[in-house]
Amino acid sequence: MINVKGFKFSGISCGLKKSKKKDLGLIISSNECISHAVFTKNKVIAAPLIVSKEIIKKNQIQGIIVNSGNANACTGNEGIKNVKSVINQAVKVTGLSKNNFFISSTGLIGEQLDVKKINTKLSKLFKGAKPNKSVDFAEAIRTTDKYIKIESTEIKIGNKTGTLLGIAKGAGMIHPNMATMLCYLITDIKINKSTFKKFIDDAIKNSFNSISVDGDTSTNDTVLGVSNGLAGNQEINQKSKNAKKIYKEIEKIFYNLAKKIVADGEGSTKICKIIVKGTKTEKDSKKIANRISTSLLFKTALFGSDPNWGRIIAAVGSSGVNYVDQTKIDIYINKKILVKNGLGKKISSFFNKAMKKKEIEIIVDIKAGKASSFVLTNDLGHEYVDINSLYRT
Amino acid sequence: MINVKGFKFSGISCGLKKSKKKDLGLIISSNECISHAVFTKNKVIAAPLIVSKEIIKKNQIQGIIVNSGNANACTGNEGIKNVKSVINQAVKVTGLSKNNFFISSTGLIGEQLDVKKINTKLSKLFKGAKPNKSVDFAEAIRTTDKYIKIESTEIKIGNKTGTLLGIAKGAGMIHPNMATMLCYLITDIKINKSTFKKFIDDAIKNSFNSISVDGDTSTNDTVLGVSNGLAGNQEINQKSKNAKKIYKEIEKIFYNLAKKIVADGEGSTKICKIIVKGTKTEKDSKKIANRISTSLLFKTALFGSDPNWGRIIAAVGSSGVNYVDQTKIDIYINKKILVKNGLGKKISSFFNKAMKKKEIEIIVDIKAGKASSFVLTNDLGHEYVDINSLYRT
Repeated sequence: MINVKGFKFSGISCGLKKSKKKDLGLIISSNECISHAVFTKNKVIAAPLIVSKEIIKKNQIQGIIVNSGNANACTGNEGIKNVKSVINQAVKVTGLSKNNFFISSTGLIGEQLDVKKINTKLSKLFKGAKPNKSVDFAEAIRTTDKYIKIESTEIKIGNKTGTLLGIAKGAGMIHPNMATMLCYLITDIKINKSTFKKFIDDAIKNSFNSISVDGDTSTNDTVLGVSNGLAGNQEINQKSKNAKKIYKEIEKIFYNLAKKIVADGEGSTKICKIIVKGTKTEKDSKKIANRISTSLLFKTALFGSDPNWGRIIAAVGSSGVNYVDQTKIDIYINKKILVKNGLGKKISSFFNKAMKKKEIEIIVDIKAGKASSFVLTNDLGHEYVDINSLYRT
Repeated sequence: MINVKGFKFSGISCGLKKSKKKDLGLIISSNECISHAVFTKNKVIAAPLIVSKEIIKKNQIQGIIVNSGNANACTGNEGIKNVKSVINQAVKVTGLSKNNFFISSTGLIGEQLDVKKINTKLSKLFKGAKPNKSVDFAEAIRTTDKYIKIESTEIKIGNKTGTLLGIAKGAGMIHPNMATMLCYLITDIKINKSTFKKFIDDAIKNSFNSISVDGDTSTNDTVLGVSNGLAGNQEINQKSKNAKKIYKEIEKIFYNLAKKIVADGEGSTKICKIIVKGTKTEKDSKKIANRISTSLLFKTALFGSDPNWGRIIAAVGSSGVNYVDQTKIDIYINKKILVKNGLGKKISSFFNKAMKKKEIEIIVDIKAGKASSFVLTNDLGHEYVDINSLYRT
């Protein structure tokens, strides 16, 4: 596994998960980082977010502590006290300050966090931290994820090498943001704060926010970026020669992690990129793409490998974009036209085969303007029902 | 089965359904009716709706012809021609006029209607019509419905007896209005047109529109009311002594049909009434109720009989109603409080048992105002996936 200068990782079991799998993770830098985080837009937010939102303002993050097995959401003042108790214990164990710690939680909502289990193991967690243990961290933050999600890359910046490492958790639920998505972007590239912020915000738009619906998010969703600047490069700003290249790599990491979240998708068997073009605004194309991607009739047709374009067109018509003209809609599956001006072509074996693939691309052209957008989605199968109806037990 | 004066019903197989089950239905009155219809708000609308929308303006409906097996949606000019061809054939068979016929279709979207199959059997359809065959009609309009949906009542109006009969089809899909819902309200009560229109519009609001989401509708949704006035009562207007009673009975018929649609719900095992109160406006409470009712995590928890209130509260927070305060939310299951001011009580056996029932009532109190609203919803189980992934085949 790729190393990022000055960063160590750790992941252990502290007993929050009944399964005894890893449920407590740590990322720790040898020095304070510049940082930027984007949090859920849900009006109900979990205790660790309430606390971390305040701490990140100080811009002194050095350690990231994440537990799975319990979301510490809807837990009131006791929930907040519990987050602070973890931070206090981390301060005791490390000698660092309170403002150095960023806390996340993921798991069941509405039950108090058994904070003693975490605090008892914090010393072990910190002692076990090693530069090559990012996989342990990735495992510790899993909930219903079938596999860990890590993406990394190295970038030449002058005669220095910078490293970007992204670690995420989340299994592409139907309303993706109704279950927690966490992502940590770790880098040693020296970069100024406002540039780093802009890069993260922009890259989220074309990745994690393209698997989301109408801005809905869970109580715990968090994307955090931290840079300790130890690569030794000249500080990057938006005008730097390498700025664009670095941005593109961040976007790629986020996109690939988002794709992995969709593909992991609680029981999904395939992923589908829905591209909507020909709208008057990007917002409209996103609205239509979101409507299709959340149509359960579409998602079950996807599961059944059925090129049922009628369900696509019905979703388009109910998207709320009022200038849609049913006699102008074109639909392509894997680049081949299936619907022309609202009328379907013969469903040849090409389409039946295309729908059976693991990755499918559907283009919907409204032919009313020049804007476009996309959403990544997955199918809805039996495993989704199993996983989510039995999650608590 | 209850009879409605002057109305006959028929239902036969014309071969549109491969299964050879009934797929062509007729309601015919001995005289022209006053009528009012409410159609889908989807921007993509099916050919029969395009035609019927024009015909109903003449207010001369006498016959209602409905086919299942094919929705005649996204079929362009040929689709419209096919509807007119059915009407022309009905005119030939009966000697009535073009403006006497209201046409509906339901089934697969995007394939041309095999209109010959219908036209060849129209004569048989009309000949078979009898006052006591409403069940045959109800069977003929089914698609994925597990059972027929009929509700009826008799009302004393002075020394006369008026009859109301409602027949619907639809299986409570997850986004209810993405699959077709049809409803026909038949009555012999003499009632003035504007009163009948108001009664139907108002009753829809608290029934079919309370199983819908955000006003989305399928390409074919239709609610049609017809009255032939043969009960012999003095014409009802909004000021009539019996007006309120008649309205209440219409609302009850629609509500019970809506409930049957939800309960039939493609694989659902239970129905849940979500009441949201304490909002500033009714629109806000509906918005929150809709969000909960479309949360797949909630619907799968319902299937698993899991009193997972965290998923309810997360849905509330993502509803877009911005004045929601997480520290004020109360949640009741079957009248017993489970969440008080955003904090969960112990999940006693009462709640575990309640969630196993066939009918569940959940109240969410936002405590920010005096408005309230409700939505009827169902759970999401394996059968939903089976039915909808294999619908075409």
